[in-house]
Order: sequence, then structure tokens, then C-alpha cells
Amino acid sequence: MARAPVYYGDYLKLARLLSSQEPESAKDGVEAHDEMLFIIVHQAYELWFRQILHELDRIERDFSAVPVSDDAVARIVHSLNRIHEILKLVVSQLDVLETMTPFDFLDFRDLLMPASGFQSLQFRMIETRLGLSPDVRVPFDDKAIEDRLSAADREALAAARNRPTVFFMLDSWLARTPFLDWGAKTFREAYRHAVEKHLSRDIDLVKADAGLPEEKRQRELKNLDRAIASFAAIFSPDAEDGGWRLSAPAVQAALFITLYRDKPAVQQGFRLLAALMDIDETMTLWRYRHALMVERMIGVKIGTGGSSGGSYLRTTAERHRVFGDLFRLSTFLIPRAALPELPPDVQARMGLVYAS
Amino acid sequence: MARAPVYYGDYLKLARLLSSQEPESAKDGVEAHDEMLFIIVHQAYELWFRQILHELDRIERDFSAVPVSDDAVARIVHSLNRIHEILKLVVSQLDVLETMTPFDFLDFRDLLMPASGFQSLQFRMIETRLGLSPDVRVPFDDKAIEDRLSAADREALAAARNRPTVFFMLDSWLARTPFLDWGAKTFREAYRHAVEKHLSRDIDLVKADAGLPEEKRQRELKNLDRAIASFAAIFSPDAEDGGWRLSAPAVQAALFITLYRDKPAVQQGFRLLAALMDIDETMTLWRYRHALMVERMIGVKIGTGGSSGGSYLRTTAERHRVFGDLFRLSTFLIPRAALPELPPDVQARMGLVYAS
Amino acid sequence: MARAPVYYGDYLKLARLLSSQEPESAKDGVEAHDEMLFIIVHQAYELWFRQILHELDRIERDFSAVPVSDDAVARIVHSLNRIHEILKLVVSQLDVLETMTPFDFLDFRDLLMPASGFQSLQFRMIETRLGLSPDVRVPFDDKAIEDRLSAADREALAAARNRPTVFFMLDSWLARTPFLDWGAKTFREAYRHAVEKHLSRDIDLVKADAGLPEEKRQRELKNLDRAIASFAAIFSPDAEDGGWRLSAPAVQAALFITLYRDKPAVQQGFRLLAALMDIDETMTLWRYRHALMVERMIGVKIGTGGSSGGSYLRTTAERHRVFGDLFRLSTFLIPRAALPELPPDVQARMGLVYAS
Amino acid sequence: MARAPVYYGDYLKLARLLSSQEPESAKDGVEAHDEMLFIIVHQAYELWFRQILHELDRIERDFSAVPVSDDAVARIVHSLNRIHEILKLVVSQLDVLETMTPFDFLDFRDLLMPASGFQSLQFRMIETRLGLSPDVRVPFDDKAIEDRLSAADREALAAARNRPTVFFMLDSWLARTPFLDWGAKTFREAYRHAVEKHLSRDIDLVKADAGLPEEKRQRELKNLDRAIASFAAIFSPDAEDGGWRLSAPAVQAALFITLYRDKPAVQQGFRLLAALMDIDETMTLWRYRHALMVERMIGVKIGTGGSSGGSYLRTTAERHRVFGDLFRLSTFLIPRAALPELPPDVQARMGLVYAS
Repeated sequence: MARAPVYYGDYLKLARLLSSQEPESAKDGVEAHDEMLFIIVHQAYELWFRQILHELDRIERDFSAVPVSDDAVARIVHSLNRIHEILKLVVSQLDVLETMTPFDFLDFRDLLMPASGFQSLQFRMIETRLGLSPDVRVPFDDKAIEDRLSAADREALAAARNRPTVFFMLDSWLARTPFLDWGAKTFREAYRHAVEKHLSRDIDLVKADAGLPEEKRQRELKNLDRAIASFAAIFSPDAEDGGWRLSAPAVQAALFITLYRDKPAVQQGFRLLAALMDIDETMTLWRYRHALMVERMIGVKIGTGGSSGGSYLRTTAERHRVFGDLFRLSTFLIPRAALPELPPDVQARMGLVYAS
Repeated sequence: MARAPVYYGDYLKLARLLSSQEPESAKDGVEAHDEMLFIIVHQAYELWFRQILHELDRIERDFSAVPVSDDAVARIVHSLNRIHEILKLVVSQLDVLETMTPFDFLDFRDLLMPASGFQSLQFRMIETRLGLSPDVRVPFDDKAIEDRLSAADREALAAARNRPTVFFMLDSWLARTPFLDWGAKTFREAYRHAVEKHLSRDIDLVKADAGLPEEKRQRELKNLDRAIASFAAIFSPDAEDGGWRLSAPAVQAALFITLYRDKPAVQQGFRLLAALMDIDETMTLWRYRHALMVERMIGVKIGTGGSSGGSYLRTTAERHRVFGDLFRLSTFLIPRAALPELPPDVQARMGLVYAS
Repeated sequence: MARAPVYYGDYLKLARLLSSQEPESAKDGVEAHDEMLFIIVHQAYELWFRQILHELDRIERDFSAVPVSDDAVARIVHSLNRIHEILKLVVSQLDVLETMTPFDFLDFRDLLMPASGFQSLQFRMIETRLGLSPDVRVPFDDKAIEDRLSAADREALAAARNRPTVFFMLDSWLARTPFLDWGAKTFREAYRHAVEKHLSRDIDLVKADAGLPEEKRQRELKNLDRAIASFAAIFSPDAEDGGWRLSAPAVQAALFITLYRDKPAVQQGFRLLAALMDIDETMTLWRYRHALMVERMIGVKIGTGGSSGGSYLRTTAERHRVFGDLFRLSTFLIPRAALPELPPDVQARMGLVYAS
Repeated sequence: MARAPVYYGDYLKLARLLSSQEPESAKDGVEAHDEMLFIIVHQAYELWFRQILHELDRIERDFSAVPVSDDAVARIVHSLNRIHEILKLVVSQLDVLETMTPFDFLDFRDLLMPASGFQSLQFRMIETRLGLSPDVRVPFDDKAIEDRLSAADREALAAARNRPTVFFMLDSWLARTPFLDWGAKTFREAYRHAVEKHLSRDIDLVKADAGLPEEKRQRELKNLDRAIASFAAIFSPDAEDGGWRLSAPAVQAALFITLYRDKPAVQQGFRLLAALMDIDETMTLWRYRHALMVERMIGVKIGTGGSSGGSYLRTTAERHRVFGDLFRLSTFLIPRAALPELPPDVQARMGLVYAS
């Protein structure tokens, strides 16, 4: 009751916020109208990155607990979806930035040397905390990204690396999924059986199809063989060597959740996986659109010479993806009708009590 | 050459920027995760408003000159289009804000009393500098919007009112358009003639149509009479009383530009009018979506009692429009084929030399 | 195996689809380049409306069952979210349509008389099947919307009216929510108690605040009284008279779900309510943006005379909302800390077995 | 007057349009709810492609004339901007398509074999008519894209190839730009002089900077040398070998327009170049997002084997760009202050008569 009345401008620290734009061109007495836009766009980015890190803080708190409570999973999904919305907004900020022409950028471009978006500590922290590992990170002109950071920022990034990543917490959480033990056999074995049955039916059909030219028959059989072989990536005990970054139990749990997504016990898990894929895709898209924008602004280099910012960004677009494994899962789905049926006790455990 | 190297974080004042979020809930020891989002969204708004005001500064410099040079008109159009892009972004920020549920808002809503977006000085300045006049501005709960501002903000808003508005500069610039004097008669007279010819042809057709039931014929003739009468709003010498906010010469020039938009001399003018309509429409849309969002967040009041923020915003959505006259112009167009031909000397003056 | 190979163009019936644009202007030998755009935009709308109706078909199948299975609720939520995405796309189609200027529209506008978007059967069916009742529907120029439809379309709309609406199925489903019976008392009573306790604490604080001027104290107490009175709308046994369209049990269940949204048993229910609000809001927004666009295209009427399409659309923007009750719920929330605790048995029934 | 009244549904051929969805799954008696979405999305794409082709028709008519009139340039810019808006919409349709999960796609995916978006004749025609040449087009699995088209479609595509492309018409039009002959010398020579002056000033500064370590000095001088050398791509008489697809005169005109964009005579030309870059960028973005979506839907292939649709699309994202030269121009800009001044007579010819 003794609270002082709150004033909008004070609450938002507008005096500070709106005096934080100091164009280099003004210091040099150069007229460069668009530098303000350049500053504002990047400050807006950094505000949104701050919000993403705030969400990652709560996610870390919730997701690193064992077990993760139902309430917590719901909160994590909510935070991930919010991060996705922010990333979509951040992508569309490029529409505003692109109202600056290359020629207008030239008015102040050289004054900013050697500052660069590569030095955004917060963006590096977001990548790191999602799960981008230092050895995957693409160096720029043969130099690690850290070499371009100030000592304080380098330290902050190092500290971020010591925290559990979303990728790591996801792996642990998935690996604990309780519904994969189907008594007599595991879900993995049941699914392997279903896959083989599904594909061998196709093989029989190809063999029995009298109208099929021999050459075509051989090619289709070869394709089916290859399909069966490809499933080894999830069935062989040493699936860790299949090119997955997730552990084998986590891969199988993710597959299980994808296939039985409508059961109450894994509905939120399915939404969690979908939200991570949304984030991964939109991050990728952001890097790519960013690359296009940089090229439009600075030009495309033809021939040799140090890599340009644009082509660097384009490289990271793919290489910095963290949750590629989840996309790869689509390769290993079989049609609904061919799915192994859930054992009754598992099915019961995956429903809600009130539903029984 | 003696310039010190610029560092991204210093350039953007990130230390200041990213320490400007001070949730009230934290001060009270209350857990309210979403207050950060609430702060960040509003800070992002204010950053963008700052950029819009920066563009309005240049527009004022360029647009208040007499005459406005060709280069300047191009710059004004560019700035207006940028403002439009920013407004579209600002609308889509609501997608992010709406990830906050009403129940989560409740965690800290009361702590912010009586702060409110109505107190955004920058937004008020934008409205004012575009041309919203104080007597049109809708009061909130019978109090002028100024009564909710701090003394300093009130003063800043008053100062903004003393500057030439975009609406005012537009009116002056339009009224100076040099192509409406067609020698023997003015464009207004030629257009009046064309309108009458166009509509009387319709009247003749209706009268001559033997197959038309009498009742329908009378109705159509009445409609055509009404159409002719409606044109009085642009043709009568005292058109100022026709409900226009723009002066009569400005209205006629805007009409002229709309009709002959593809001639080099008015191409940029046409784009200028279109950009103002884009801005007006998107501002309106923003107020409206904002109203919907507020209602979703705080609930819809049924029955009597002080007006709610949502319904207030919805009222301003329409009443605060500045460039409604430009939309109204569409009522007074006639088909291309019925347009009066430009006199040869006017046509020549509206082309480019190289084209002759 | 005997399936014929499918060809893209045949599969999509492109020969038919791409020959379905027959501009009236071409028939009249008039040059009106933009009529093609006008046709394509409206055809794209209708394709998307077809998809929305396809989703509504599945929703009806799933939602009209008693009880609605967990799988079905998940499917309904998925369909509603898809409808929401489609509506967002449909809104952004206006960005394309607005590349047509009023002057270009004039080239063919009269040729289309009296055709109008009001005659979109599919859009009327969507409104109807969501739950817009005929007596709420705003008439246009004193004529029911049906009067403008062909006999066949009128019949189809009448048939749609005989089907269970989403609103109706929602009401029934909510009213069956099993967690509101808390043994000794109902959730309604427990919540009423919590509300009173929460507000009376505020009353005590106001009374005890020595520093408060008497006039202000009286005003605050009056506000609190009013707040308590407003809750009657959900607590009085005859809440049906409180201005709700939903039944009293449904309102209470919706409130319950909103407050305890993170419990597994109501997570999907919460998402279902949120999706309906998203749809309601985006439909409203679409009507409103549509109204702005119409006014830009045809002009704003000033003064008397038959209502214009633009102002009609603006009226329906509000009046045709179907799920306003869900927005109103926000008025009746209290902070998390003041919530009544779930009885242990209810809490248990709302969790998942595996979690115990 | 004798016109029959037009009915919305007849005008839009809705009976035909809305009966053109024939899911393969329905024919097979398979339940695959999402196939309707798949069909509708692709039909909506094709409708929009039809509109783009309609705009390209007008562009071709206007742009292939010699000279291109001022009115025509304005129309071309308008059509290009509309195409850009359509492409943005088409990109956002992916948001709707992504509501289909890979698992749901599996319900009918095999039934569509071997149909594929690669068979969209209209999309191929758009690429072709913009200026993608057959020898640049990336083959899919070693087969030209034509091999997957029906005979009729192949013929239609071949016919499209015989029409003047936007790229070709742009080149011719640019090469005719009348302002590059500056009397004593050409714009090219004046600009070369300005570039050398601008860069040699930098060289002098580097040499004179006493505080600069020798190693760094050498590196900076080398960079400046490289910069000067790079400009050879626009200055050497045989610039055709510089990796440009545009002719040397066209490159120089595009550069000229970019640098003097605010002069009335080239304002529309500048907008034309900008619109082409917008289109090029959004086409690229569309292919890329499409690639991501395909991978999400079908999975990422690891290791050897036929190329996947996703990685093919990603390859074309870059390789199928038509207007890359315009982006490359940014590399050859110098700051406004270093620009050569326009000779007075050129300046005069670039203004409007009324401005003199």
C-alpha cells in the first residue's frame, strides 16, 4: 500500500534507453542519417536476445531437475514457443533494416571498423546455451569467434559454456522416458519388427508384380534394401556411431514420442520437440536471410580473398544447427497403420486416470 | 586514421541498455517471470518510436522548405516508407506480447499502477507531429491525455505542438502544385465537366433502357443524382465546408496527382500520398489490434463504469486518423477513359526533358 | 502396386484451376489489367475457406462425441491451430490486394455489380459453424445476408445451421469437466471464498492506511466494492443472466481450466480455449482490416445515405465475435498466490499415473 | 446496361474451383486428413504463379518497346513490386503447410509418386521468363528438369524460352541510358578518376601514419591495392570477362543509377533495380525455406545415395539467382562525398522542366 505510484517513463528507464544512441558519424561531423537506424535495429536485436536468455534461464532451472515435473514441462514448452515467436520477429526486423540502401550505409560504414555483429556476446551465448559446441562453431577467417570479443565478453561466454545446454538437458530427459520398456521386449525391438514387416511386404509385392520390367524390379528391390539398411542407424546397438549427436536411448525416445504423440503422457513432450525444431529452423533462416542482407549491403565477392561476412553467415546457417537430429527422425517413420500396438499396461500408464 | 577501433558492445551502449530492465516484482520479492517480457516489449516499442521521430525530423527539414526540391521529395518518400515498415514491425510485436497470458500478467499487473502506455510521450509526439490536433484527441475518462504525463513530458509534448506537422506541410506543398492551371480553365473545371459528361451518359442510358422496370429506373436515377450531388464536395467554391480537413486547393491537387500519377512530374507525389495512407492505415490497425490485446489481457467490461483501456483504444483507432481525406478521395475518381486530357503544354511540363 | 504414376499438374487439376479466371472486362473488351489480381485473390480466399471447412468437419466429428477422447482433443487443438494459421495468412493476403489502387479498381468495378464478398457462402458457413447465430448476424442495408445469396447457396447455409456449432460443442464439453466437484464444496464455492478473502485483504489495507487522504480512501473502497459485485456474474446461481452466452457450468469450467492450466488433465483444454481466442481475434482483425481496405478502395462516405461496405464490415468486426465470453474471463482471475489449493484427490486425478 | 447481374460464386467459378480437390487417399479408401491441406496449399501456389505470369506478360509488353516510355517504366515498377508482395505471401504459406507433421504426411506421401513440385510448369516459366538460362539450371539426379515434365508442359516451357526475358530487356534498357556521355569524358572515366582519388587518399594516410606498426601498414596497403584491382571489374574495357552476366554498358548504367538515384530522371530506374533485387532475394529465400521444410518433412539424408529434394532445393537457392549482378554492384560504390559531380548539362537533362 505504501508503494509509490509508477510512471511509465521511469519504469522503462526511457531517459537512459533513449540517450543510448551515439552515432559515430555525429562525432565525426559527418551527415549520415541512416546510422540511427543501424543502431536502433541492433539495439532492438539485443533487447530481444536479452529476453531469450531470460527464457533460457527458466528453462535451465526447470529442465535440469530430475525428474522434470509436468508443470515444468508445460513451462518449458511455453518458453520455447515464446523464443520462437521472438525469433520470427527478429527475422522480420530485416525488412526494416533493408530500407537502408548500400549507398547510405557507405556514409558511415568505415567509421564502425572493426565492430561487427560477430561480436554480439548475447547471440553467442544463445547459441552456446542451446547446445552449439565450440568445436562445431565455424571460425571466421581462421580465427575463433572469441578472438574478436573483449576480455570481459570472452569470460562471460566461457561461463555460459559451463552451464547445462538445452541439448544436453533434452538428451537426459529423453533418455529417462519411462514407456519404452515393453516387458518381454523393448519398444526398439517391437519397432524393428514392424519396420521389417512393413518393408518386406513391399518386397513381396515387387517380386510378385508380373508386369514390372526386370530392370525396374531390380532397382526397386535395391531401393528397399537400402531403406532397410538405413534403419540400422536407429536399431544397431552401437547407434552412437550412426552420425547422431543425441544418445541412442534419447533417439529412440524421441522417435517413440513422435509416433505416439496423441497419448496424454507424451503430448507435451511432442510439443517440446516441435518447439525445438521451430527454433532450429528459424535460427537457420535468420542466419540465411542475414547473409542475403549482408551481401546486398556490401556486395558479393567474386574470386579469391578473405571470406566475406555474407558467405560466412551462409556457412553457419547449416553448420550451427543444434537440433538436426530431430529433423533426421522423419526418415525413420513408418505409416500409422504399420505401427506396433502399445502393450495394454503401457497404454494405460500413458493415459490420464480420469479417462479410465 | 587516428580513430580508435570500435567495439560492438560499446558502440551500442549495451552495458547501459541491458541493465535498464528493473522489474517491480523483483523489488517486491514476487516471482513474476513475464514482467521481463512486458518491459522488453515496451522498450522495443520506444526504440522504434525514437527512430520514427528521427525520420520525422528529416521530413520536417525537407518538407518545410519552399519549394521542396526533387531530391527532398524522394527523401521524404523514403522516410515515410521506412516509418511504414517500422509500424508493421511494431504491430507484429503484439504476436510476441500475446505469449503472455492474462493469468501471468496478473502476477505483476497491480504493481505497475498507475503506469500505462497512455503515458508514452514519444507515441503522443508521433501522433502530434503527423498532425493530430489537440481538440480531436479523445480524452480518457474525461481527462486530457496530458494530465497523465509528468511535467517534463507535458512540456516536451507542448513543444512538439509548435512544430509544423506533416499534415500542414502536405497541405502547403499540395496547394503549390503547378499543374492545375490549364490556361483557359482550371483542372477543377475540366474535371467537373468530365464528371458531368460521364454521369449524364449513365443517366441517358438508364432513361433509354426499355427493359428496365419503372421502379428500378427511378431508383437508379436517384442514385445518379445523389452521385452528382456528392461531387459538390470537391467542386463547390466553398469546398472547405465539405467536411475536408485539407484546404480546397490541396484536395484538388491530391486528386490531380491521383489521376495522373504516371507522369514523371507527379510520380513521387503519388508515392508520397500512398505512403501517408499506408502509415495512417497501419497506425489505425495498430491501435485496433492493441485494443483487442488489452481486452484479452484484462477482460471485457460489460455494463456501466469507467471506460476500459480496450474500448478507449478502439475509439481512437478511428478518431485519431490524420489522413482520412486521402482515403475519401477514392469517392471522387472517374474511370480512366472518362478523364479530361491534359493540355499539351501541361503534359510537356510534366515530362522529362530527355523524353522530349 | 498397380497404381498409375501421378503427375503434378493432373493431381492438382491445374488445367481446370488455371482456366477459371474469366475477367468481366475481357468480355467487354475493356483493358483492366488488375481484374486478374482481384479474381485470384478471391479465389485464393475461397480455397483457404474450403480448407477451414475441412478442418471444421473433423472437429465436428471429434467434438460431438461423448466423451471426447484424449486423442480427439489433441486433434481438435491441432485443427484449431491450423485454422488460426490460415486466418493469419488470409489477413496478409490483403497486402497483395492493396497493390491495386482505387483508380485501377475503377477500370472494372462497375462491371461486377452487384457481386460482392457478402455473397461468399463459404465464409458465411464458417461463421455459422463456429457459432454465429442468425439473430446476431448484422443485416446489410436492412436485408438479411441470405437475401443476397442464390437459392442453392441459401439452402447450403441453412443446412450448415442444422449442424452442431463449435460453440455449442464447446459448451457441452466444458460443462462435463469432471474436476469441479470438490467433495464438501464445489470449485465455485472455494473460488468465491478465495476471491472474497483476496479482496477483503485489500479492503483492510485501505482502511488501515493512515497516510491515505479520506477522499481517496472512499474512492478505493468503492472500487473494491464494485470489484466484488462484478464477480456476481460468475458466482450467482442465475449466472445465465450475467450476460454470458456460455452456460454457467461451462463458464466455471473454463475459469477452472484457465487457473489450473499446467495440470496434465487440463493442459490440452487450456490450449483449446487459447486456440479459440486466437481464431476469434484473428477473424475480428480480418474483418477490420478488410473494412479499412474497402474504404481505401471505394472511399469513405460522409453524411447520410445507405451504409457503405466498409462501415458494415467494421460493425460486424465486433458483433460477429463468437467467443467473446472467453476474453471476458480475464476479468475474473485472481493472482496465483490467492488461488484455492486443489483437494489432494482432485490433484491426483488431474495428474498422470506415471508421475505418481 | 444490358449486362446480366454478376453473382459472386459464378464470377469466381467456385463450382469448378472447389470441386478440384481429389485426394489420392480417398480413391484408395485411406484416411489421410492432411492430404486436403497439401492439395490446397499447392493450388494456392499455382494461383499466385498465374498472377505472377500475368504481371510478367504486361512487363514484357512494356519493357520490350524501344524506347520504354515513362508511363511504362512506372507500370513495370508497379508490377515488379506486386510480384514481390506475392512472393512474400508465398513464403508465408509455408507457415500453414508446416502445421502438417511428417507423420501425417506419411499417410499419403507414397500415393503421390512420382509427382513433385519440380513439375510445376508455372514456376519453371517464372524462372525462365525472369532470365534463368537452361545451362545454369541445376539438374536433379543428373536429369534435366524437362525430363520430368509432360510433353505438353515441356513444349510450353520451350515456348517461354523464346520470349525476351526480364534480364535481357533490363540489359538492353540499361545500355540505352542517355546520361553516361559526359562530353569530354564518359561517366566511366570520371568515376574511375574519383575512385582512384578516394583510395589513394587512404594510401597516403596509411603511409603517413607514424603510429602504425610496419606489419599492419603493409597489410593495409595490400588491402587497398586489392581494392583498386577489384575495381578493374567495372573499368577495364573488356569488363565482360569480369564475371558479369550483364553487358559492360548495362553494368555502368546500373552503377550510375544507383549513385544518382535521387535525380528525377533515374528515380524510377532506381526503384526498378531495387524491385528486381527484392524479387531475387525473396525467390532465393523461398527456395531456401522450402528446402528446410522438405527436410523437416522427409528427413535429412546422411551419407551417400541420390540427392534429396531438400539439398537440391538448397543448391538452386543460390545457383538459380538471376540478378546477382545487381547485388554485386554494392562492392563498387564510393561514399557520396567522393562522387564526381554531374556536368551541368547532364544535371539539367536529369531534372524536370518545371524545376528549372
